[in-house]
Amino acid sequence: MLIDGKKVADQIKQEIAEEVNRIVAAGGKRPHLAAILVGHDGGSETYVGHKVKACEQCGFTSTLIRFEDDCTEAQLLESIASLNNDPDVDGFIVQLPLPAHIDEQRVIEAIDPRKDVDGFHPVNVGRMSIGLPCFVSATPAGIMQLLERYEIPTKGKRCVILGRSNIVGKPMATLMMQKHQPGDATVTVVHSHSNDIPAICREADILIAAMGRPGTVTADMVKDGATVIDVGTTRVPDPSRKSGFRLSGDVDFAAVEPKCSFITPVPGGVGPMTIVSLMRNTLLAAKGAVYPKN
Amino acid sequence: MLIDGKKVADQIKQEIAEEVNRIVAAGGKRPHLAAILVGHDGGSETYVGHKVKACEQCGFTSTLIRFEDDCTEAQLLESIASLNNDPDVDGFIVQLPLPAHIDEQRVIEAIDPRKDVDGFHPVNVGRMSIGLPCFVSATPAGIMQLLERYEIPTKGKRCVILGRSNIVGKPMATLMMQKHQPGDATVTVVHSHSNDIPAICREADILIAAMGRPGTVTADMVKDGATVIDVGTTRVPDPSRKSGFRLSGDVDFAAVEPKCSFITPVPGGVGPMTIVSLMRNTLLAAKGAVYPKN
Repeated sequence: MLIDGKKVADQIKQEIAEEVNRIVAAGGKRPHLAAILVGHDGGSETYVGHKVKACEQCGFTSTLIRFEDDCTEAQLLESIASLNNDPDVDGFIVQLPLPAHIDEQRVIEAIDPRKDVDGFHPVNVGRMSIGLPCFVSATPAGIMQLLERYEIPTKGKRCVILGRSNIVGKPMATLMMQKHQPGDATVTVVHSHSNDIPAICREADILIAAMGRPGTVTADMVKDGATVIDVGTTRVPDPSRKSGFRLSGDVDFAAVEPKCSFITPVPGGVGPMTIVSLMRNTLLAAKGAVYPKN
Repeated sequence: MLIDGKKVADQIKQEIAEEVNRIVAAGGKRPHLAAILVGHDGGSETYVGHKVKACEQCGFTSTLIRFEDDCTEAQLLESIASLNNDPDVDGFIVQLPLPAHIDEQRVIEAIDPRKDVDGFHPVNVGRMSIGLPCFVSATPAGIMQLLERYEIPTKGKRCVILGRSNIVGKPMATLMMQKHQPGDATVTVVHSHSNDIPAICREADILIAAMGRPGTVTADMVKDGATVIDVGTTRVPDPSRKSGFRLSGDVDFAAVEPKCSFITPVPGGVGPMTIVSLMRNTLLAAKGAVYPKN
């Protein structure tokens, strides 16, 4: 069965918009998400554009703050400080990657964890690991929503995660082993130094591919009846497209799909859920549902 | 081969003492570890006593701050604030568990992460997950030291961790999958809801048992040539002992030992390493090696 991330994302956006309407009708403030964008990277422009559009769909106020490629780290940190102190801004993100002369980690740590709706600040990463209320980063949070809404059983199931990145592999492992639903799975994380990757993958009831290498997961690596979540979004040159590229997942979809109980397509699977998770975090921030409002 | 945690711990304490001597000879300050102990729990008294003794062996200054069982959370938080602000104190711990009327998590989060040598603050947990400099909590750090000093290969090896606690299972998983040595392993975490635990354990090149249930790991669960790290330290009633109990690991040592390349005994394995890791963190704090000194 195809997991329709687009449809679920649209549904969640509608739920959020309805809640925002109720908040505003009761005299409350619209949730406000701000984004800082440095430079003019094509991918970053696209992502930020999608986020601004999603804010409109959810009834949020959005602010886009632009810097040129040659902006200094100090300028960026000043802008972050001002967003930290702006009581109207509930949450904000700094679109990554940043130019090489800026220390990305220093920028992330400058964000007030209570407004860190991307969930990249060490405080949010640590709180997630411990199992405390926190902003879970958007891609893992989106995958958890898909598992929940499609009622895919996870308790006691074998979950194999391909990739150990800070933004997908490691947080997914933490969430899937946690004592909650979805979760309670037996989690294995494989990566570039792992041996016998196909054999390990074949044990998976839930296989989460986040290597960023198209075609990594072939049919022989998937158990009959498994759930396959494809996080890969690699731009592959494609002269037949107007953009000159197409998005490719890590999974050989055509060959793997017939073996699966559930599978996410690329595009239209995890991607749309990522942006909607950012919206969800922003709503939680506005409501003071993760950290109490001052 | 028996992994002699006592011997390694003694060696590391001697290395630390030598470094402290050099620091003091050069006009520097002795590292200073403070501990807050609430109440008179027998286990806590013993642990804190061992920590004070280890401070002496390492040439550290130590301070023990005692509160009665009925102290208020506010009193405790006040004491923490004063240690946070005391420039002579390099690191401090609050011995857990705390009485039920005190919010343990609030207490942990009140500690300045730069003095949190137990590594329990979300900032340190998050930084460890991300792979940034941090205080790694004592038991996982001690196990990593044993793997390193016995030169046990971990890269690409299957590592199975029994237990998903915040102080052992989850941080061990993070450390063992990280891109460093020891590390780079293919990690699986099993827990009370996992199925086929024996079969999963049999795949392990490195088996780390942290369930806290004596006799959990039997010989049929261990592959020939595996390394077995036993983190269990359960007090089992034993009338033949003066104390009335003995410490029991999670591993059926007598049956498992003949199959192993390396194995830690209980006591004398991971236990002594835990306290020495706290000393190591305190030295790092004093040197400003994790967080720069103000």
